[in-house]
Amino acid sequence: MAEPALDALVDALRRLPGVGVKSAQRMAWHLLQHDRTGARRLADALGDALQRMRHCARCNTFTESELCSTCSDPRRDARLLAVVETPADQAALERSGGYRGLYFVLMGRLSPLDGIGVADVGVERLLARACDGVVEEVILATGFSAEGEVTAQAIRQALEARGLKVTRLARGVPAGSELEYVDLSTIAYALVDRR
Amino acid sequence: MAEPALDALVDALRRLPGVGVKSAQRMAWHLLQHDRTGARRLADALGDALQRMRHCARCNTFTESELCSTCSDPRRDARLLAVVETPADQAALERSGGYRGLYFVLMGRLSPLDGIGVADVGVERLLARACDGVVEEVILATGFSAEGEVTAQAIRQALEARGLKVTRLARGVPAGSELEYVDLSTIAYALVDRR
Repeated sequence: MAEPALDALVDALRRLPGVGVKSAQRMAWHLLQHDRTGARRLADALGDALQRMRHCARCNTFTESELCSTCSDPRRDARLLAVVETPADQAALERSGGYRGLYFVLMGRLSPLDGIGVADVGVERLLARACDGVVEEVILATGFSAEGEVTAQAIRQALEARGLKVTRLARGVPAGSELEYVDLSTIAYALVDRR
Repeated sequence: MAEPALDALVDALRRLPGVGVKSAQRMAWHLLQHDRTGARRLADALGDALQRMRHCARCNTFTESELCSTCSDPRRDARLLAVVETPADQAALERSGGYRGLYFVLMGRLSPLDGIGVADVGVERLLARACDGVVEEVILATGFSAEGEVTAQAIRQALEARGLKVTRLARGVPAGSELEYVDLSTIAYALVDRR
C-alpha cells in the first residue's frame, strides 16, 4: 500500500523513544480514525514547543523565558546548587519536598561508550554557573547508574579544582537505578545524608 | 514549573494510545533536546496526513486517492471480499500471501459495552459494497476476540439476509487473539479452511 503521507507519519512516530513499528502504526491509525482533534493538537503543540522552548540561561532546563520559574524564585536558597541529568530528575527532587536550593540541568550525562563527553553535557556552563560567588555547595544528583556515577565523578573533579564544596546524594538511593523512579522518602533521606 | 508550551506538548503526547505521563515527558524531552528535526518532521507529517488521508470509496481504508491501491488493482479477484477490522489486520492477511481478493475495512468493531453499534463501524457501507453484483463470497476476517466475533455475527446476519455467501476464517487462528499478531502460516491455514 503506497500511501506516502501515512508512511511518513508512521516513520515520524517511530522516531519517538520506545515506539516500534507496530505501536507507530496503531498510533497513526488511532489519530486518523478516532482522534483527529488530538492529531491537530499534537502537531500544533510540537510547532509551538519548537518555537517557544529554549534553555534557561542559568540552569539550562527548558523554559519559555530568559530564566525558568525556579531560577527566578527569590525564595530559593541560592547557596545550594543541585546538578541533575534531566528535567524529570529535577521534578523528582522537587516532589521529595526536601530541597529548597537551585538546580543545574545537564540535559544528558557522560557516556564514553557512546562518545558523549564532557563538552556534550554542558559541563563548561555548569562551571561558569557554579563559580558565581554565591553558590557555596554543589550537590551532585546525577543518577546512580554507571554513567551517572562517571558524570558525577567528572564534575566533582572539575569543581573541586576550583575550590568549591561538592557533595553527592547519599547512597540511600538504590545503586543502579534511575533517580526519576525512586520513591520520595528515599530521595528525602538521600538529601539529608548527602556527603 | 509553569511552561505552557511544554505542558501542552506532554498532554498532546499522552493522548497517543499506550503513552502514559512518564513516557510523554520522556518523548517531549527527547524531541526538544535530541531530535528537533524529528519533532518538526512529526508535526509536518501529522498536518500532511490530516490534510491528505481520506477513506477509500470502495473499501474504507485510508488512502490519498479516490480508490486505494488494492481496490484499483485489476489483478485482484473481485469476487472475494474479506472484511477486516483495521488496516493492520488487512496488512497481516496480505503478508500471509494466501489471499488475492478485495477487502472491506470496518475501521473498528462492534462493542456493545462501549456503545459502539452497527452504525459506527460502517456496516451500511459494507452492505452496499457487498451487493455490487460482482462479489460472490464475503470472508469474515474480523478478530477472534469476543468483540470480533460479535461483529462477524452481526455482519453475517445482515449479509445472509441479502442472499450473499458468507464464510469465516477457520478457527486455526487461536481464539481470543488479535489477527494482527498471529503468525503467517496460521493465517494461511485459516484462509484455506474458511467455512
